[in-house]
Amino acid sequence: MKKSIEKKINPEDNENSSSLLRVILRGAGQVMFQNNAWTGLLFIVGIFWGACHAGTYAVGWGALLGLVVSTLTGYILGFPARDGEQGLWGFNGILVGCAFPTFVGNTTWMWVALILFSMMSTFVRAGFNNIMAKWKVNSFTFPFVFSTWIFLAAARAMHALPPDYMSHPSLPADFASGLSLHFTDLILYWLRGIAQVFLIDSWITGIIFLLALLVSSRWAALWAAIGSAFALLISILLGTSGHDVSQGLYSYSAVLTAIALATVFYKPGFLSALWALFGIAMTVFIQAAMNIFLEPYGMAALTGPFCVTTWLFLLPLVKIDNNEHPDHSNWYVENKRHLSRRKS
Amino acid sequence: MKKSIEKKINPEDNENSSSLLRVILRGAGQVMFQNNAWTGLLFIVGIFWGACHAGTYAVGWGALLGLVVSTLTGYILGFPARDGEQGLWGFNGILVGCAFPTFVGNTTWMWVALILFSMMSTFVRAGFNNIMAKWKVNSFTFPFVFSTWIFLAAARAMHALPPDYMSHPSLPADFASGLSLHFTDLILYWLRGIAQVFLIDSWITGIIFLLALLVSSRWAALWAAIGSAFALLISILLGTSGHDVSQGLYSYSAVLTAIALATVFYKPGFLSALWALFGIAMTVFIQAAMNIFLEPYGMAALTGPFCVTTWLFLLPLVKIDNNEHPDHSNWYVENKRHLSRRKS
Amino acid sequence: MKKSIEKKINPEDNENSSSLLRVILRGAGQVMFQNNAWTGLLFIVGIFWGACHAGTYAVGWGALLGLVVSTLTGYILGFPARDGEQGLWGFNGILVGCAFPTFVGNTTWMWVALILFSMMSTFVRAGFNNIMAKWKVNSFTFPFVFSTWIFLAAARAMHALPPDYMSHPSLPADFASGLSLHFTDLILYWLRGIAQVFLIDSWITGIIFLLALLVSSRWAALWAAIGSAFALLISILLGTSGHDVSQGLYSYSAVLTAIALATVFYKPGFLSALWALFGIAMTVFIQAAMNIFLEPYGMAALTGPFCVTTWLFLLPLVKIDNNEHPDHSNWYVENKRHLSRRKS
Repeated sequence: MKKSIEKKINPEDNENSSSLLRVILRGAGQVMFQNNAWTGLLFIVGIFWGACHAGTYAVGWGALLGLVVSTLTGYILGFPARDGEQGLWGFNGILVGCAFPTFVGNTTWMWVALILFSMMSTFVRAGFNNIMAKWKVNSFTFPFVFSTWIFLAAARAMHALPPDYMSHPSLPADFASGLSLHFTDLILYWLRGIAQVFLIDSWITGIIFLLALLVSSRWAALWAAIGSAFALLISILLGTSGHDVSQGLYSYSAVLTAIALATVFYKPGFLSALWALFGIAMTVFIQAAMNIFLEPYGMAALTGPFCVTTWLFLLPLVKIDNNEHPDHSNWYVENKRHLSRRKS
Repeated sequence: MKKSIEKKINPEDNENSSSLLRVILRGAGQVMFQNNAWTGLLFIVGIFWGACHAGTYAVGWGALLGLVVSTLTGYILGFPARDGEQGLWGFNGILVGCAFPTFVGNTTWMWVALILFSMMSTFVRAGFNNIMAKWKVNSFTFPFVFSTWIFLAAARAMHALPPDYMSHPSLPADFASGLSLHFTDLILYWLRGIAQVFLIDSWITGIIFLLALLVSSRWAALWAAIGSAFALLISILLGTSGHDVSQGLYSYSAVLTAIALATVFYKPGFLSALWALFGIAMTVFIQAAMNIFLEPYGMAALTGPFCVTTWLFLLPLVKIDNNEHPDHSNWYVENKRHLSRRKS
Repeated sequence: MKKSIEKKINPEDNENSSSLLRVILRGAGQVMFQNNAWTGLLFIVGIFWGACHAGTYAVGWGALLGLVVSTLTGYILGFPARDGEQGLWGFNGILVGCAFPTFVGNTTWMWVALILFSMMSTFVRAGFNNIMAKWKVNSFTFPFVFSTWIFLAAARAMHALPPDYMSHPSLPADFASGLSLHFTDLILYWLRGIAQVFLIDSWITGIIFLLALLVSSRWAALWAAIGSAFALLISILLGTSGHDVSQGLYSYSAVLTAIALATVFYKPGFLSALWALFGIAMTVFIQAAMNIFLEPYGMAALTGPFCVTTWLFLLPLVKIDNNEHPDHSNWYVENKRHLSRRKS
């Protein structure tokens, strides 16, 4: 009985809803709030494409390792299986796995740390959600952000973890905002903004990610596209670093804010679209601010701006679609309620 | 029936207790915990005096714009009207409006940001209070502080927001503590400390603000005066930056701590006076510490030291005036209970 | 009746369980989670040995003063006596008293601040525990860490508090990881790691502290030793600063994490040992990260890395020893449940 209900609200699961492979792949999908193994698979394809193209294969393997380790950690620690089967153990781990080889040299200790921190991301998430559920919000990708900030800062104090691909620590200073505004270039920046959710700097990966979202939810794909485009527009108008804009670094957080506010925690509609656009604009400011705060440490803001913005917009529990008591602590339930019927 | 009770506990409201103009003016008054439109009006007069005198008219207009926008946002988002009618939507917005033109050049985008962040300050307050009510404290002016920190940091990464009037990012270094200690100079520093609550550097504004407080509560005026004077004394004894002391920058947070601890959350009395003096002393240390933490970003601590100190002194829920279960989450109720009878 | 139960679960208290002297000494003992006056006495002996040996007598007297003042503050503020009698008012104060003369020059104002901040540590603890009890964790030594961070940062902005023994503010830069790995040297580093819990740089003090722990709990002594040794191993393998490692600065936080995870909040056993070893490893990373974050301010991480790590490992409420609803907010109760029978 219960199973049949599960199937109804979860149309992708036509076979073995909790096979380990599916669970792992869903972990990749949940980075963008999609409880869908195919989406997850396409995300991994996009990551490998970008990693191979840039010659940084370690990023691809790191992503896979982080995803598998963090998912298995959920089983080992005996966390509620329902969470895990929706891929909620793995999405922080895959991001840890993308980030570590992106910023730190390919040493043995980097891989050991990648395993330890991927494991940690799973139980840190349980702890953060334990905290945040009191206010009806979720920790999102913050376990990844928090763990990776620790790792990146620690790398500056550990010779075994060379911070080869991190920027140099410096005080905030002047910078160049100029960049090419040809239409084709804008398209590339826009697509890279979507790819950078997984720290990939490739416009082709951006296309693959959009397709991956389409498989699961047209609304999510649409708002990922809008989020990246609108953040691109605002960051250019405000005169942010041209280098960062061209690599999509002012858009990836906004992609996540857009999907979260416009499709997951509020029903797609006119008012929630306005709310999401406001959120996207604020993500650009918060991205800029967090970049500045981290400059003395030469560290990246990761998806922190998305987390902070989305918390700010969810914590007031503003009612848009007449839900009596908005509870934003469990995105899976919200997601299903808002999207299940639209898809079919 | 309910209305007549409202009138009793709210003696100023002899006409239309929720006319928009009154609600907006009370927003100005609530910056110093006064639910009084006349106090708010005099605060605005003081702001305009200081702004005109310094030739920074934008600060005055910014204050008005921030106040109006943040108050209207409360209505638009459908927040509980009771809060709004007490001016609790506007006090963060007016501070946002004072701060933005004080630190950032007068550009179009500064004004757009001022409107967006004033709106945000209203719902960020709802979110922060949602968090802090769990521990029976209030977010005070922290929504303003938080929003403005984001804006100021972002301004360092956005050419459209020139950080013209912010200090240069630097590591903590030596500084001069010398300053004139003539009696007349000390009076000026003391009055400027009160004016700086709204970021105004004018001793005449300090006098206007004291008068504004007197209109609403003699206790609040007395403790604003004590707070600024005691913080001035301590900051001189401890050898803080002479430049900062002379501009009142070590006193404005203490003014707010003093009003909060001695008159709003505890009944005026001998023990609560000792508690408030302890709080004022700690505000000076916390002001110094937060100045140092923000030096690498060239950013101001704003009223953050007041918020942090007052939280530290309220969170333990220390009983002073025999209230069974002190609940500091709603200052309006506390304020009325402690002060309503004393005034008449 | 109740008293006899108290005696049973608290075997040291064979006379006057709440004599002021005992209560004060237990405050020293609770720094390492030991509700034992003799342990506290030996800790103080160890502190004085280290202070005399280094010629910094002020550290010893500061420790005593901070301990006494913070304990008395609990009585003055009327906090629940049960907490105080277990030494839970004093352990933050004694650390404040060790830290202030360690980092700041021996001036009158330093002593005034030491008294004020010791008092504050007692009620800040009440406030932080009020916050953290919602998630079933405790604030540990964070009231000390937080208060001392404020003091150290403020000292950089106050000529009356010369930051003579603090390192210079700087951006993260390269460093030397080389250090002697002779067996006798490793033993000294290992013992210093235990002494540094109280900011003492002396291997003899390390031995005294181990003896002090033995008086109260063999498990605590064992895990203090393991914590320091394992953190030493990891920090050497990861190539952290040789200077810091040799002074025990990568071990003291891990000592506390080890005692907390392996003996206080989980029952000693195979699985909790694995959990504690994971925690010790993470403490090293978090120590490195917090050192980096504080470098621009030339400030020490104090026992912050222990607090952060232990929170991360307790917040998920992972069940190891089949306790239905692990509640980590009161370590005294947990401590007794796990250790009382083992000791006798």
